[in-house]
Amino acid sequence: MANPVSTPVLLTEEARELPLRLAESVLACNGNGYGMTIADFDTWFADYGGRAYTNVERVALDRLDGWRTDPVTGNLGHQTGRFFTVEGVDVHVPGGPVEHWNQPIINQPEIGILGILVKEFGGVLHCLMQAKVEPGNCNGLQLSPTVQATRSNYMRVHNGKSVPYLEYFRDCARHRVLADVRQSEQGAWFLQKRNRNMVVEVTEDVELLDGFCWLTLGQVHLLLGVDDLVNMDARTVLSCLPFSGPGLLDTFAMGEDGFTAALIRSYDTGSGALHSISDVLSWITDARSTHDVFSRRIPLGHVTDWRRTGGAISHARGSYFTVIGVRVTAGGREVGSWSQPMLEPCGDGVVAFLAKRIDGVLHVLVHARVEPGYVDVVELAPTVQCAPESYRGFAAPRYLDDVLTARPDQIRFDTTLSEEGGRFYHARTRYVVVETDHDVAVEDAEYRWMTLRQLVELLRHSHYVNVQARSLVACLHSLSG
Amino acid sequence: MANPVSTPVLLTEEARELPLRLAESVLACNGNGYGMTIADFDTWFADYGGRAYTNVERVALDRLDGWRTDPVTGNLGHQTGRFFTVEGVDVHVPGGPVEHWNQPIINQPEIGILGILVKEFGGVLHCLMQAKVEPGNCNGLQLSPTVQATRSNYMRVHNGKSVPYLEYFRDCARHRVLADVRQSEQGAWFLQKRNRNMVVEVTEDVELLDGFCWLTLGQVHLLLGVDDLVNMDARTVLSCLPFSGPGLLDTFAMGEDGFTAALIRSYDTGSGALHSISDVLSWITDARSTHDVFSRRIPLGHVTDWRRTGGAISHARGSYFTVIGVRVTAGGREVGSWSQPMLEPCGDGVVAFLAKRIDGVLHVLVHARVEPGYVDVVELAPTVQCAPESYRGFAAPRYLDDVLTARPDQIRFDTTLSEEGGRFYHARTRYVVVETDHDVAVEDAEYRWMTLRQLVELLRHSHYVNVQARSLVACLHSLSG
Repeated sequence: MANPVSTPVLLTEEARELPLRLAESVLACNGNGYGMTIADFDTWFADYGGRAYTNVERVALDRLDGWRTDPVTGNLGHQTGRFFTVEGVDVHVPGGPVEHWNQPIINQPEIGILGILVKEFGGVLHCLMQAKVEPGNCNGLQLSPTVQATRSNYMRVHNGKSVPYLEYFRDCARHRVLADVRQSEQGAWFLQKRNRNMVVEVTEDVELLDGFCWLTLGQVHLLLGVDDLVNMDARTVLSCLPFSGPGLLDTFAMGEDGFTAALIRSYDTGSGALHSISDVLSWITDARSTHDVFSRRIPLGHVTDWRRTGGAISHARGSYFTVIGVRVTAGGREVGSWSQPMLEPCGDGVVAFLAKRIDGVLHVLVHARVEPGYVDVVELAPTVQCAPESYRGFAAPRYLDDVLTARPDQIRFDTTLSEEGGRFYHARTRYVVVETDHDVAVEDAEYRWMTLRQLVELLRHSHYVNVQARSLVACLHSLSG
Repeated sequence: MANPVSTPVLLTEEARELPLRLAESVLACNGNGYGMTIADFDTWFADYGGRAYTNVERVALDRLDGWRTDPVTGNLGHQTGRFFTVEGVDVHVPGGPVEHWNQPIINQPEIGILGILVKEFGGVLHCLMQAKVEPGNCNGLQLSPTVQATRSNYMRVHNGKSVPYLEYFRDCARHRVLADVRQSEQGAWFLQKRNRNMVVEVTEDVELLDGFCWLTLGQVHLLLGVDDLVNMDARTVLSCLPFSGPGLLDTFAMGEDGFTAALIRSYDTGSGALHSISDVLSWITDARSTHDVFSRRIPLGHVTDWRRTGGAISHARGSYFTVIGVRVTAGGREVGSWSQPMLEPCGDGVVAFLAKRIDGVLHVLVHARVEPGYVDVVELAPTVQCAPESYRGFAAPRYLDDVLTARPDQIRFDTTLSEEGGRFYHARTRYVVVETDHDVAVEDAEYRWMTLRQLVELLRHSHYVNVQARSLVACLHSLSG
C-alpha cells in the first residue's frame, strides 16, 4: 500500500532499560557464574529425568476412567464437567482451498496461565524453568515455564498438589509484569483456546524447588536448538517478551554484515521495515473482513468422514489426527495417575518462516491464515505450516517445497520440537528458518514480509500471532546472541 | 501496579507529520476558505433535509413485509436469510451484579464498512461527510460518514442503488489509509457485531455528490456539540483517527493552564500517564481472564421475562428495550421503501467519563465492562454507561450520581446524541464529560485512570474500546481545538 502511516509511542526510561537487560541475559549464554552452566544443566536434567517418570498406556476411549461419551451427542467429556471436551466442529470457508469440512475438536474454554518467573542474579536476568513430564511428550521430560496451569489445575479439580510458584502470577501487583497477554493455541485442534502468557520479575528471594532451575535467556536459547527439549508453553511465553528496542541493539555486536546483523536490525524500532505497522494492521483488518469463516459446534457423533473404531476416532483416510485414550501413571506431576483423551497427529509437522534480507534488515514472510478455532477469523502464521503426510495425493501447500529443498547454507534454524504434551500425543514439529536469496516468495493478499520488531509489537496484543509463529519467533530470538 | 514497563515504538517521519495535519484541520474550525463555513453548512443541511424525507410507520412484527418469525425458534429473520436476525441469548456472569439472564439480541455477523474519505483543500484536511436519513433517527437527517454500508448494502441485496464512494474503501491500496480497524458495537444489543472503521486519504479529484459535503475536523467538532446531529457511525470512525503525537501538541496553543491544556497534554506520547500502557494491558488481560461470561445463543421463543404482545417484544417490567417493527418510506436512501424490526430502548441513556487532572494531565476513568455480545469478555467502557429508567427500584450504577449532580462548572461536554439509526429506534444518549476535583473515584479491579493517548493507542486494535467510549473519545477530541 502506498504512503505508510505510523503513530508514535513513547520511548520511556523503562523501555530503554528492559530490552538492554534482556539482551544482557541473551549474551550470558553459558550463565554468568551465578546459575548453572549448560554442563550443570545437562547433569541436573538427566538426574531429574531418572527420578521423574511417566507411564503412558493407550486405552480405548470408552474405557477411560472418569470420562464418558454422551449417549446423545457422542461428545467425550469428564464426569465432573471440567477439564475439556472433545466435540465436533462444522466449518465453511467459502472460497477457501477446502470450502467445507467437519472434524473433532478440543473444547477447553478455561483460560490457563503459562508463566515464567524471572529474577536478576549478579545483575543478569534468569528464568525459572521447570523440568516437567507430560504424557504426550515423546521423551517424557521437557523444559517448561515456571507455571503451566489450567484453571482446573489451580482450582484443584484434580485434588492434587498445589501448583508451585502460582502465587507470583495470580497476585502480580507486587511485582513487575514484563508480559501479560492472552494468546491462542492450535486453531485446527482447539476451539478458541487461549492461555494467558505471563513473564513476571521478582526481586525477593525465591525458594528453588526440586525440578526447577534458573537459566539465563542465552542458556534457554542454546537449549532451543536441542530436539524436543524446550516445550511449546515455554516457547510461547518466551515469544511474548518485549524483545526489542535501542538498548537491545546497542548491546549486541553488529560486526559482520551477515545474517545475525540483519536479524538484530530486524528488532530495530527505526525504519527499515518494508511495510509500516499501520499498513500491516490494515492488511490484517482486510483479511479478517474479507474471509468468511463459519465455524459451528456440532455433536461429535455428527462428524462425517471420521470413524470411531478400535477405541479411537480417526479420519477415514487416516489423515490429520486421531483421538486416542491414554492412562497415565506419573511421578512429579500434580496427581499420581489419571486417564484422558489425547489428540495424536498424523506424522510430524513442518513449520517454517522464509526469511529474506531486505536492505540489510531481516524480514520473514508471514501468512494470514484461517483456522476454525480462531477467535477472530485469521491469525498471522508462519510461511509454511502443515503436516506433509496429510497432503499425500493433494497439492502441496505453498512454499513447502522451498523449505524441503533448501540448501544447507540457507537453513538458519532447524530443530524438531514438541507441541503441548498435556493434550497432544507425540506431536512433533520441525521448526525451520530458511533464508531465501531470490524472489521466491512474492507477496499477495495472503502474505506479507514483516520484521521481528513488528511481530514483537503485535505480540503485546491477543489474537494476532498464532502459536506456531510464536514458537518460530522464540527460535529467531535464539539466533540473536 | 508497581514498576511500569513499556516498549518503544518508532517515531517515524510520517508519524510526526499526520498528527500535525490533523491538528491543523482541528484548528480550522470555521473552514479555511476552501470548503463551507458553518453558516453555509446549516443552510445546506436544512435545504437537503427539506428534500430528503423518511416516513416511518410502526407495524406489528408479524406484519413486516419480507420478515418472518421462525415457527420453531421464534427467531425473527428476513426471508432471504440476509440482513440480520433477532434471536435470544442466555447469559451467565458468575459473580456479576446480575448472575443470569436472557434477552433478545440482534445477530448481524456481517462486517460492514464505516468510512470517512479525507482530502486536503488548501493544505487542510477535510472530511467528506454525508447528510443521511435513517429510520431510527428521532429527527430524520443526521451527519454520517462518507460510507456506511453493511455487506448486504454493498453486495446489493436490497437491489437498491450502489453505495457512493465505496470503491475508495474496497480498493484502498492506491490511497493512504489513516485508520483501518474492526470495532465492536453495542454489546448489550448486538451479538458480536463488528464494523470496519476506516479513514482513507485521497489526493485525486473527488466528485461531490448531492447530500455530501467537505468539512474540516474543526467544523465536525463544532457540530458534535449539537444534539442529534453527528451520528454514531461518524463518531466511532472519528475516534479511530491517530489523534496523537508531538506534531499535534506543538500545533495547539497551550497558553493557560486550564482544562484544555490538560486535555492536550493527555495526547502527549511523553510521560504523565498514571499507569504505563503495559500495566493497562496487563489489567485488561487480568479482567478478561478472571471474569467468566457464558453467552449462549438460544431461540428467541425461549427467552423468559420477555413477552411478545401487541406486535412487539418487550421486557415484563417494561425495562431495557422493546423490539418493534417499522415500515419505512424514504427518499435519498438505498431503496425507496422497506420493513424491518428495530430495537427501541427504554428511555435515554447516560454515558459519561469522569475526568481528572493528574499532575496537569487529563485522565478519564475507564471501566472494564462485561457485555454479553463482546467477542472477548470485557471492553473498556465509559465510567458510567446506563439507561437510568431501567434501574428504577434497583441500586443506581456506580458514579451515576456524580454525573447527575455535577456542578455546571464541572461539565466539560454535555450533548445528547443518537445511536445507530438503522437498527435502533429513537435511541438517544446523553454524552457527558465531568471533571472531578476530588478523589471521588478510587480505582479498583474494574476502573483505571487513563490518558487519551492510551485510548488512541488501543484504538488501533480491535476489541479494546467499546462504542460508547469511542463516542466520548470523539467528543473529547472536539474539545481540543
